[in-house]
Amino acid sequence: MTRPVLLYACPTVPAEPWIVEFRRAMPEVEIRVWPDIGEPAEITHAFVWHPPRGLFARLPALRMVFSLGAGVERLLDHAELPPEIPLIRMVDPSLGRDMTIFVVMQALRYHRRMPEIERNQRARIWSEVDAPMASDRRIGILGYGELGRLCADSLKGFGFDLSVWSRSPRDAPGLRAFAGVAELPAFLARSEILVCLLPLTPETAGILNAETFAQLPQGACLINVGRGGHLVEADFLAALASGRIAEATLDVFAEEPLPADHPFWSHERITVTPHIAALTQPRTAVSMIAVNIGRDAAGLPPLYQVDRSRGY
Amino acid sequence: MTRPVLLYACPTVPAEPWIVEFRRAMPEVEIRVWPDIGEPAEITHAFVWHPPRGLFARLPALRMVFSLGAGVERLLDHAELPPEIPLIRMVDPSLGRDMTIFVVMQALRYHRRMPEIERNQRARIWSEVDAPMASDRRIGILGYGELGRLCADSLKGFGFDLSVWSRSPRDAPGLRAFAGVAELPAFLARSEILVCLLPLTPETAGILNAETFAQLPQGACLINVGRGGHLVEADFLAALASGRIAEATLDVFAEEPLPADHPFWSHERITVTPHIAALTQPRTAVSMIAVNIGRDAAGLPPLYQVDRSRGY
Repeated sequence: MTRPVLLYACPTVPAEPWIVEFRRAMPEVEIRVWPDIGEPAEITHAFVWHPPRGLFARLPALRMVFSLGAGVERLLDHAELPPEIPLIRMVDPSLGRDMTIFVVMQALRYHRRMPEIERNQRARIWSEVDAPMASDRRIGILGYGELGRLCADSLKGFGFDLSVWSRSPRDAPGLRAFAGVAELPAFLARSEILVCLLPLTPETAGILNAETFAQLPQGACLINVGRGGHLVEADFLAALASGRIAEATLDVFAEEPLPADHPFWSHERITVTPHIAALTQPRTAVSMIAVNIGRDAAGLPPLYQVDRSRGY
Repeated sequence: MTRPVLLYACPTVPAEPWIVEFRRAMPEVEIRVWPDIGEPAEITHAFVWHPPRGLFARLPALRMVFSLGAGVERLLDHAELPPEIPLIRMVDPSLGRDMTIFVVMQALRYHRRMPEIERNQRARIWSEVDAPMASDRRIGILGYGELGRLCADSLKGFGFDLSVWSRSPRDAPGLRAFAGVAELPAFLARSEILVCLLPLTPETAGILNAETFAQLPQGACLINVGRGGHLVEADFLAALASGRIAEATLDVFAEEPLPADHPFWSHERITVTPHIAALTQPRTAVSMIAVNIGRDAAGLPPLYQVDRSRGY
């Protein structure tokens, strides 16, 4: 095999921090940055996020594609990506840690009724807003993959009464584990704070809708760090208006950036964060890429390859 | 010894949840609630918070006083409390857990620059505010007693670069431990997020002042869950104005409730919480009281007695 050539093709993400870490972690690999791709036939690997239209058709020697983000549904929809080329999802220990920090931060905030305390502050009201013991607070996590497990472990450490739901049964020691469509209502009925960490697939699209909201306890809080496509926006606004949902943090949206005239921005009980729950950190993410380029050179199958039939 | 009689004398705290748990945990103890104290000479134990003036002088058989809250400086200042009667501080596993939840929640919030993200939301600005890796974020905890240790352990679990400071050297495995006045500047210089968890004593009163603020990194965040007496308010407002301190959460104040005309309420970069960081939970706090009344009956010394010379 000739010298690997890795193309950085993430037009919306500053390249410099990545290039520094690529050079440090794999000095034997030549790095090129879109749009300066040089001779396209020399490019063997591509690291992409919102890749430029027509890119893949120009790369006849492409052997492997890495996604900068953990969610790959936009890449799978990308008709130009040849199906025989392995697509590698982002597995970054920092990404898991950052997602855990974000989910724990928001869950603790709702557990301790901080939005109410903040409203009291604006009205100069001193009211000793209490909270139940953590062991009496029921938190539910939709999705029990890598990130769901990390978040569950961390929340468990605070003593919360935690349950998880996944499409197929999983081993979840020390947690209440629900699986499949049949067990979704029982899971929802006990989720005072509901965290969505699902991948976006045809089965999970629109899963946060009027029917599922109706099964939550009155006054539940929602944290959506999955994908915008999980949430039916009109149903969600109705659930907020009825009080079924009391507060929500949304990090992901059907359209990103969230349009300036979208009603979510100014809703008093919605916290909008700009898709920053999980930050992919170049320093730690780069090792997974270096390992996979090395395995490719050695004729070994890649790690963390996306199963296109499942969609993640 | 005759049957113990415990007086509940916390006029500002609803009695009912406590009485339920007292009766459950120690059915052998008679419970009375201020102001219905019956025959004062029968009262052997008192559970107090902001006790009524003149109370202790009326209780000739008093053997032990329990504080509902962890901070006892107001009780120590209470000239009426006879010095020979053991004063027991609150040690409640829930209190430690609740304090940990509060401190972690606020520290994660500042780590992830949430105030900036919230300001962006109000202006409908989508800006992918990033944050360093947790291992590059320096958090300092002033005070390394029971609560400081719990908070440090929990924050350590997220991978933060954590240091602690205490008046006298402590064993703090896995942490950078600073001790004494001489090491305070080095500790402060590395505290991007500073948490005050000190007891209020003559040595720690006013420790958060212009001199200490000047030793913090520019743009530091402050979380004061110690006592209002730790903070020199004018110095603090000046440090916020200069940008030395970027954001702060204050749970405790020189005067509580915080007066309605106090400038803290409306300051954009101060979060005011009404002394709710650590909630004493009747269900878990009551066992420590039952244990001590039992030890007293058996002639054993009490646990968690306040050392009045140290002030905690």
